[in-house]
Amino acid sequence: MYIRNEDTICAPATVPGTGAISVIRVSGPEALAIADKVIACRNGSISEAGGYTIKFGTVSDADGRVIDEVLASVFRAPRSYTGEDSVEISCHASSYIVSEIISLLYVAGARAAEPGEFTQRAYLNGKMDLAQAEAVADVIASQNAAAHHIAFKQMKGGFSSELRDMRTELLELVSLMELELDFSEEEVEFADRSRLDNLLVEIISHVGRLIDSFRLGNAIKNGVPVAIAGATNTGKSTLLNVLLGEDRAIVSDIHGTTRDTIEETLNIDGILFRFIDTAGLRETSEVVEKIGIERTFKKISEASIVLGMVDLTRDPETTLETVSDILDKVDFSSQKLVILLNKTDIFDINKNVSTINTIVSLIDNKGFKAQLANEGEIHGTESNIEENSSKDVVNILPISAKTGSGIRVLRNLLASTQRDLLGDSDTTLVTNQRHVQALTDARTSLLRVREGLASALPTDLAAQDIREAIYHIGSIVGEISTDEVLGNIFRNFCIGK
Amino acid sequence: MYIRNEDTICAPATVPGTGAISVIRVSGPEALAIADKVIACRNGSISEAGGYTIKFGTVSDADGRVIDEVLASVFRAPRSYTGEDSVEISCHASSYIVSEIISLLYVAGARAAEPGEFTQRAYLNGKMDLAQAEAVADVIASQNAAAHHIAFKQMKGGFSSELRDMRTELLELVSLMELELDFSEEEVEFADRSRLDNLLVEIISHVGRLIDSFRLGNAIKNGVPVAIAGATNTGKSTLLNVLLGEDRAIVSDIHGTTRDTIEETLNIDGILFRFIDTAGLRETSEVVEKIGIERTFKKISEASIVLGMVDLTRDPETTLETVSDILDKVDFSSQKLVILLNKTDIFDINKNVSTINTIVSLIDNKGFKAQLANEGEIHGTESNIEENSSKDVVNILPISAKTGSGIRVLRNLLASTQRDLLGDSDTTLVTNQRHVQALTDARTSLLRVREGLASALPTDLAAQDIREAIYHIGSIVGEISTDEVLGNIFRNFCIGK
Repeated sequence: MYIRNEDTICAPATVPGTGAISVIRVSGPEALAIADKVIACRNGSISEAGGYTIKFGTVSDADGRVIDEVLASVFRAPRSYTGEDSVEISCHASSYIVSEIISLLYVAGARAAEPGEFTQRAYLNGKMDLAQAEAVADVIASQNAAAHHIAFKQMKGGFSSELRDMRTELLELVSLMELELDFSEEEVEFADRSRLDNLLVEIISHVGRLIDSFRLGNAIKNGVPVAIAGATNTGKSTLLNVLLGEDRAIVSDIHGTTRDTIEETLNIDGILFRFIDTAGLRETSEVVEKIGIERTFKKISEASIVLGMVDLTRDPETTLETVSDILDKVDFSSQKLVILLNKTDIFDINKNVSTINTIVSLIDNKGFKAQLANEGEIHGTESNIEENSSKDVVNILPISAKTGSGIRVLRNLLASTQRDLLGDSDTTLVTNQRHVQALTDARTSLLRVREGLASALPTDLAAQDIREAIYHIGSIVGEISTDEVLGNIFRNFCIGK
Repeated sequence: MYIRNEDTICAPATVPGTGAISVIRVSGPEALAIADKVIACRNGSISEAGGYTIKFGTVSDADGRVIDEVLASVFRAPRSYTGEDSVEISCHASSYIVSEIISLLYVAGARAAEPGEFTQRAYLNGKMDLAQAEAVADVIASQNAAAHHIAFKQMKGGFSSELRDMRTELLELVSLMELELDFSEEEVEFADRSRLDNLLVEIISHVGRLIDSFRLGNAIKNGVPVAIAGATNTGKSTLLNVLLGEDRAIVSDIHGTTRDTIEETLNIDGILFRFIDTAGLRETSEVVEKIGIERTFKKISEASIVLGMVDLTRDPETTLETVSDILDKVDFSSQKLVILLNKTDIFDINKNVSTINTIVSLIDNKGFKAQLANEGEIHGTESNIEENSSKDVVNILPISAKTGSGIRVLRNLLASTQRDLLGDSDTTLVTNQRHVQALTDARTSLLRVREGLASALPTDLAAQDIREAIYHIGSIVGEISTDEVLGNIFRNFCIGK
């Protein structure tokens, strides 16, 4: 592994100009000496200061003009973020001051840190493993309780220790096998084959569970995908606006790296939802634009929750065809469906009983329980709705996107649906594509081991496959890593972290 | 004065989500106790920690879930920014974490700080006077060396001590007068009237100099106004683009509070220039649109530097009329003019000698010295141009806005012109509208004193006028201030400062 901590790095750790103070980080063997060259302290130099103490000092430029008065927080190796000697310089949040101080640090011998280099050094110095280091960026990016909880747990090593246990088990397995190999001439079978296989099955199932958790982990990290499906002009965008309107302040556009559209996100009860724009289904019953419809169905398939919008002021036959289409496309094993009867401001629910009953029987025919929340319940307690977030229930919710009636119930339903999916909050959720890939590779190797053992393949080949699985699992925490892997991971960090 | 530091305040001092770390400030009598309720430290509480030390600890929410691991910098009164007990909490730069910690601080007894309240407390606790406190915001906002230098000097009390000296002199003056009043029955004139008058004249001139410095001070703070004047299609916007293009990264739009247009600004050699868009002069020589032209002339009058654009490929008569118009409108006592002969890429300077000579004589007739930088000099050393930035010289510069030829010389000329205007960098420059108003009021009172003394008005009236002048000067540093004044000053600060 290529280690290059012999030089001292610096970078701003905050963005200047938008706050009261800015912080500049310096880390490396010369950090204290370099800070001393840049910051003049009245009583005692920074090099002489103890760890976890603060020095007040003055920064002047080459012409002796005072740039700022600063506070320098001193950290001594190994008790620092990077594990190296470090100084955090707190100055006024002026872009001019920050760039002047950075320039002076360069002159004094520091170089500009690359993105994520502080965290990379923490990893290289053994302050954290690779999965923990990756979680640092996720902790910073997390904007809601659920995403924060997963990222923080990973940063603190929860996921890593789970992987280490798994790795230890596999190492024991492989050493048993190799012991057998050593004594192979004596034809001794040290390892109990059926016990071996049980262990393998257990580990493969554990790995599979982690791989499967990515869908949920990713949803929590990037927002639970919600598709609003229905014919055009049933009020899909009005619904989106009313949902977002209540929380306009905490709405942000997420421009995903793998998505080419900007989607609206909404934070409800600490859970981030990401709304997927779908084209209208069945714009007219006569003209079915196949491509558009297929695109919409594809988007529906990407959602965790599907909101099927129905406009009861329309022709009942078309409405029922739309509901039927949506029911066909929802994968109830992994998706949750809610039918929204929109426009309660202009339709009387009691005059549409037959259409609603037909919708209910369409749902019944699929083997699910339709549950209608009537207007009374909407304005009453919400306990009734919360109970119905379970998977085998399809909620039918009368709403008015225009007046906002029923929207609060819908928000609660979205949040409770997701809470049910989350389940036990201590289950590990994988949120990182790299980890999923490594786990998938590990599973492939382990499945090959099982096959091999079943077909009486030589033990040394099986041992080799287990070593491969160990390699893949180890690559997640960085026990095995290449410069290329490290570069890919840390270049996505912000500067100064 | 209304002091309300009995409660403890908190606010983020950095903007979360865009950097590596965020800092939250807590200040007030309960700061350390409140921090202890929010941050669990392993060895020793924050209340027990000494000033200028750092404690590592964990923040957990009401459900016991860990929100973050933080560093708490501890400051004890009076050795802190506010002069009160203070804690600066450094956490991961996640908006979720910051808002959770802020919420926990509220629960523990802190309240949200108002904009500028930390600095206001520093003022109320005597850590700085009002002019210094106001300069804190200017230091943060300063984006170039010149603006930073003025703001930093004011923050460190340079301006304040100058005002204090002036105030002391006036106090001596008034005490002399009041002594005379006490003995008025004995008809003794303690104060030497002509000495009094000399002192007054000196102070009035000092105050006047400070008032006059506002034009320059304001230019440095908000950008030196540069008007590009000339007929349409002489290349004014091309010039602007080529000037800005070289430094696109450090160009920013400043939306002035008193201006209703967004103007382009450019940082050259640490000086900020603000380019004023002017409509074309004399679009055709026949049709003079009076209103448009007058508006342009008004904009020219607001500039410190006027760039007169001339296109020699045009009809010479129109060109000379434009130059003549510009020469008439420039106030050479406070403005600097540069004539730009644009489009050197398509015209041959040697074929336009007669037009150029006429321009030179137009300038001569105004009593100024025209100085032509020829193409050879443009590509040669720049010392020749730097010398010509003095006020009595009008530089004539052949350029090509299209190819960029001559632009570097123009940039140097702009910078050196402004450096000349700046003069001795230790002269105090007033940059604050409130201060100018107070100084203007003080001068009015002092002029009244002089008048009164000359016309043998009763001494007690003159003494009263001097007290008024003292009041106005004192209001700048906050020796006299009202809640309303303080509110106006600090509400323009950012939160957390």
